[in-house]
Amino acid sequence: MLESDFMNDNLIRHKITQHYCTHCGSKVSIRIPEGDNRERAICDACGAIFYENPKIVSGCLLTYKDKILLCKRATEPRCGYWTLPAGFLENNETLEEGALRETFEEAGAKSQDIKLFLICNLPHISQIYIMYHGSLLDGKFSAGVEMEDIKLVTETEIPWDDLAFPVISQTLKCYLEDRKKGNIDIHFHTIMKK
Amino acid sequence: MLESDFMNDNLIRHKITQHYCTHCGSKVSIRIPEGDNRERAICDACGAIFYENPKIVSGCLLTYKDKILLCKRATEPRCGYWTLPAGFLENNETLEEGALRETFEEAGAKSQDIKLFLICNLPHISQIYIMYHGSLLDGKFSAGVEMEDIKLVTETEIPWDDLAFPVISQTLKCYLEDRKKGNIDIHFHTIMKK
Repeated sequence: MLESDFMNDNLIRHKITQHYCTHCGSKVSIRIPEGDNRERAICDACGAIFYENPKIVSGCLLTYKDKILLCKRATEPRCGYWTLPAGFLENNETLEEGALRETFEEAGAKSQDIKLFLICNLPHISQIYIMYHGSLLDGKFSAGVEMEDIKLVTETEIPWDDLAFPVISQTLKCYLEDRKKGNIDIHFHTIMKK
Repeated sequence: MLESDFMNDNLIRHKITQHYCTHCGSKVSIRIPEGDNRERAICDACGAIFYENPKIVSGCLLTYKDKILLCKRATEPRCGYWTLPAGFLENNETLEEGALRETFEEAGAKSQDIKLFLICNLPHISQIYIMYHGSLLDGKFSAGVEMEDIKLVTETEIPWDDLAFPVISQTLKCYLEDRKKGNIDIHFHTIMKK
């Protein structure tokens, strides 16, 4: 793909929802700043320029013996569907800290041996998923407030039709294929809007 | 590290600079929303909660024959120092698109074979660097507006004392070591504030 293709495409898709300046509370205009090539929210009063950037979601696929730790969502979006523990990386965190924090908050689960497993671009929602793989420490887990249920499942027990997001199906498929081959690799994917 | 350690640590380091709501222009308060465990800016009028998250910087280490493409910065921070082409990932981009766009914007350089090379956490400034390695297409390059100079350098010509950022030194060191070993690998680093 030529750089001009994705730039034009981005300019069309990029939607800015900011109406007011976070610094002084004045109205912002949506326009391209001098020397830039994309529209930004710019404060009409103080001149502040606001940049919106993709968010990172980090999480873990943890295994215990031959089983995989899955979580049933108790909140929207996709309430009632199954997922892997993952969430938005917070300021001042490393990717690994974020993945482990989300795993503990959502699934009461820990791991001491996580390694990068999958990177997935979701450009239509400006998210980058960074998923780790590791072993579940002591086989212990418990549902956090955002989850209805947590369980360890074998390959045949994975609820493929009730998974929350395509990136979760992709992560599970990659893991099962790697395990069959006897070698856990690092995977790269991009999931486009259907 | 226990999850409680890095959470407490984050709460101390995390500074929110937002004063007004981007939706309605009213004042925000800095407090922990119900069901959350971190301080956020919350609009006193409309109740909107604002989340600040780490930004991704993606870029490229491109090589041509035995030489590495370096850029001399023409803007602050670190004006006049040497760097690799890299910049903030934009909404609706993939990591690879962002790395190639920055490389073309800053160094007029293209590549058709980039692969993930290094992931580096910079938690003190809430940035995640995702660096790719590839070969410079046709040996062509030219300085973009943010750069004073672009050049291809051999290993002995790398201006180690005049590199812009520690993450750039780290990327170059990893590459040179890998090249010596004859195998370009994927590297993971965390650079803490000095």
